[in-house]
Amino acid sequence: MKTYRDFIRITTADKREIRDITREVSQIIAKSGVQDGMVLLFPHHTSASVYVSDSDATLTEDFMGLMERIVPAGEYKHDLTDARRNGRAHLMSLLSGHNLTLPVTEGALDLGVYQTVYYAEFDGMREKEILVKVMGE
Amino acid sequence: MKTYRDFIRITTADKREIRDITREVSQIIAKSGVQDGMVLLFPHHTSASVYVSDSDATLTEDFMGLMERIVPAGEYKHDLTDARRNGRAHLMSLLSGHNLTLPVTEGALDLGVYQTVYYAEFDGMREKEILVKVMGE
Amino acid sequence: MKTYRDFIRITTADKREIRDITREVSQIIAKSGVQDGMVLLFPHHTSASVYVSDSDATLTEDFMGLMERIVPAGEYKHDLTDARRNGRAHLMSLLSGHNLTLPVTEGALDLGVYQTVYYAEFDGMREKEILVKVMGE
Repeated sequence: MKTYRDFIRITTADKREIRDITREVSQIIAKSGVQDGMVLLFPHHTSASVYVSDSDATLTEDFMGLMERIVPAGEYKHDLTDARRNGRAHLMSLLSGHNLTLPVTEGALDLGVYQTVYYAEFDGMREKEILVKVMGE
Repeated sequence: MKTYRDFIRITTADKREIRDITREVSQIIAKSGVQDGMVLLFPHHTSASVYVSDSDATLTEDFMGLMERIVPAGEYKHDLTDARRNGRAHLMSLLSGHNLTLPVTEGALDLGVYQTVYYAEFDGMREKEILVKVMGE
Repeated sequence: MKTYRDFIRITTADKREIRDITREVSQIIAKSGVQDGMVLLFPHHTSASVYVSDSDATLTEDFMGLMERIVPAGEYKHDLTDARRNGRAHLMSLLSGHNLTLPVTEGALDLGVYQTVYYAEFDGMREKEILVKVMGE
């Protein structure tokens, strides 16, 4: 089994922001030389998530709106111990799955026609890193 | 590493429906010849999910009931751009995890005694495909 | 590809409890001899979850608080068929993702500086087992 390890680094302009990272992931798969296997996208922070969805700007708005409704602003215990007061961001990350394993076939992401890989930042405006681990043949 | 790629195709009778796909997944693992490794179940649509749960019809009802409560009917921005008006279905898929990686041992699914693999359709009555990628030795 | 299969067994003192299992997972990776690849943590019960988060006791309290709020106590259909009446526990497990795939690099977990692996029990006070499957080179 061949493995390849790289990072995508993102600093968002806003505290909460969703960004299409399909191109960056595809470039790393191409560099890896892996033809068949999978790629694990693992943010090295737990105040962000990687997920797959249809490519549509309204859908990213709906998704963030859902997160903001399910995990409302308020007093979280974590905010008393962490100067960033990002308890809400951590809960959004946990609820939306944090990391993602994607299939790789013939040297490329094996996604449905409309599917896109998104990075959801819940506590941004500082550099975050997403570990990209490609594994296969 | 050996890999094997196949599809499970499902057209549900209802818009929202949950179906046991354990047998179909097991058959693909048998065809793959993989004895030890894992299988990635990846719907090529983001208005459905694959998940593992105990085998019990009441539990699938409770699960869909939870989804309907957390992601209520209403106006989603995505509905204004997509003729299928399936914003709600997309959010249910995102919240329930969409895809699933399962362990394979001795040529079969390595699940707990009561565990079953389910496909949850949130926008059905049309053909959907689930990519099944088996990887291992 | 090398694979290694082991279990972590946990009996919690309380019905709902969150426990740091990073050390146990790391020991199994060391025993596996796998230097580069991934580890799949798969509870053989669907009334518990494994997840990654920052190491902070207040955050585990916030997480369990969120689960208790989103999946409130009440009548679930599953409770009518299962003597354990653990429908709520099953839904908490489904919503929090149940299982987890983690990257392994240079023979160890490849996590962010603050990241910790947690086991969330939603129906404890009896022995549960988490399958730990290490795969790689």
